[in-house]
Amino acid sequence: MAVVGATGVVGQEFFRVLAQREFPVTGLKALASERSAGGSVRWGGGTVPVEALDERALADVDLALFSAGADVSRAFAPLAVAAGALVVDNSSAWRMEEDVPLVVPEVNAGDIVRHRGIIANPNCSTIPLTVVLDALRREVGLERVLVATYQSASGAGRELVDELEEQIRAIAAGGRPEARVYPHVLAHNVVPGGWPLEEDGYNQEEMKIVNETRKILHAPELRVGATCVRVPVPVAHSQAVLVETEPPLGPEEARELLRRAPGVVVWDGPGPDDYPTPAAVAGSDEVYVGRIRRDLSSERGLLMWIVSDNLRKGAALNAVQVAERAIEMGVL
Amino acid sequence: MAVVGATGVVGQEFFRVLAQREFPVTGLKALASERSAGGSVRWGGGTVPVEALDERALADVDLALFSAGADVSRAFAPLAVAAGALVVDNSSAWRMEEDVPLVVPEVNAGDIVRHRGIIANPNCSTIPLTVVLDALRREVGLERVLVATYQSASGAGRELVDELEEQIRAIAAGGRPEARVYPHVLAHNVVPGGWPLEEDGYNQEEMKIVNETRKILHAPELRVGATCVRVPVPVAHSQAVLVETEPPLGPEEARELLRRAPGVVVWDGPGPDDYPTPAAVAGSDEVYVGRIRRDLSSERGLLMWIVSDNLRKGAALNAVQVAERAIEMGVL
Repeated sequence: MAVVGATGVVGQEFFRVLAQREFPVTGLKALASERSAGGSVRWGGGTVPVEALDERALADVDLALFSAGADVSRAFAPLAVAAGALVVDNSSAWRMEEDVPLVVPEVNAGDIVRHRGIIANPNCSTIPLTVVLDALRREVGLERVLVATYQSASGAGRELVDELEEQIRAIAAGGRPEARVYPHVLAHNVVPGGWPLEEDGYNQEEMKIVNETRKILHAPELRVGATCVRVPVPVAHSQAVLVETEPPLGPEEARELLRRAPGVVVWDGPGPDDYPTPAAVAGSDEVYVGRIRRDLSSERGLLMWIVSDNLRKGAALNAVQVAERAIEMGVL
Repeated sequence: MAVVGATGVVGQEFFRVLAQREFPVTGLKALASERSAGGSVRWGGGTVPVEALDERALADVDLALFSAGADVSRAFAPLAVAAGALVVDNSSAWRMEEDVPLVVPEVNAGDIVRHRGIIANPNCSTIPLTVVLDALRREVGLERVLVATYQSASGAGRELVDELEEQIRAIAAGGRPEARVYPHVLAHNVVPGGWPLEEDGYNQEEMKIVNETRKILHAPELRVGATCVRVPVPVAHSQAVLVETEPPLGPEEARELLRRAPGVVVWDGPGPDDYPTPAAVAGSDEVYVGRIRRDLSSERGLLMWIVSDNLRKGAALNAVQVAERAIEMGVL
């Protein structure tokens, strides 16, 4: 099997997750751009050399976990498939293609069987959101979802994590933080953007939440709105979420549904400061939900606060879970 | 006149705002707790000694700007009024009292005349929100408001600003940040709490936004919901806001209304990263609005991003503007 984008923040997480879950790894290849090739990654007490990604490197690969950006996935995922691999792709390149399943195993594992070589891994905010929404809709119909995100630097890759740390050091030293890779300084700031703009004032990240949520839930008409904001946090994405349901769902009913949901931890009191934060959740596998309460601005709304590690459940863990299910289902 | 809470973050801002606006200051007193008394604050090229707050210190004061917490306001504002002063109180102590006007001058300056000695200054997130909502309702009816905030450390006072800076230095030095005054570490984190919990899972800050917005807008039935989150930013509060109106309002109509609104700056394109951020807005007087767009989850909703300096328009500036209007209206 191969990890493509082996030196990135998600690539590195792939190796940790594969080891922790004792995934049946054979013939592991670590692939990256020519620029990043030549080093090595740690694996199983030893190391694996990082090789340059090209068509030849993908020969004899049965499973390829891609996280090297949409352009790399568009160019190389079809080559991996042609060479006989199943690709689980963490980029946005194939997510909305009709014949590509977009899978969160807790929600729509059944879609895996429809794959034609590529299974797409959803956006890092969409995955935890759909895990929660799916748990709620076991009892009620979903009418509307509105989210405001608090997304960590690692969602934009290692460069922004490094830039944030440089900015933190500059501030601590009494200097002025500077932005090089992101359009605004992130330290001591929050930034409602940094993603390419699409139509009607929405950015790409917001439209991913809207469209991917509908696809994963098989709810093409579901009303979804989003505001995406980058915050100066290294790892773990948070979101303030409104869910309107029919019939209305009480907070305690919602907690009960979420407590029974696979992959979800309800962290909601009893103390006034018992709720998940990104610092507390980073490194964990679960989707954490707290601050569940009735929305005071509507009759059918629930408000909640969802936090999840964007590199794990939001990316590498979900992709490995997809591969595990593909094995169980006999389609890998 | 007197500034009560002269050594706090808002108290210090009072002196800057009074000087910048050439407020007609006579007999300036700087008052603070016994613990903070003894030093001095800069004023008009010289200094003013910081005296301990007691009943005697409030004699002969015509105008008292309070920002020393709700307990101090509850204890001392009535004494100042009894001594003949008009109190503009930045704490939450009197805001919801029926005979105390709660004033944002751009919105409900007319309420000033009803004062019986105390005029309350609203919550630092509520002020910019109501300035924007009032501008919109000149053309349409407001049906529903839902906000998710991104509030800076200075909203909790100097102690949290200092704690955040200590945490930043600890991280830059490779150490572990620690929390002493706030329930969670704020650096490298976002915290959906830290305010006392009230009923139904809402915290005090969220209920302030709900109740104060209704009072300022004279709209006791307005549906308002809120999620309040502290972010690692020193100064300036941001909020992601949903406004549902009847009839629906288009983004360009909303921009036009906001461009004409006093105290508001529309910062919304044309570039993909042209929007307000707290780092860009800190130190400014205006309420900045960007990312204005149709809500994809409703037919009558608009989404927008509001940023304002919580120490200036959210606190000291608004209070001084209230005092200026009281003078103009002949009630001071």
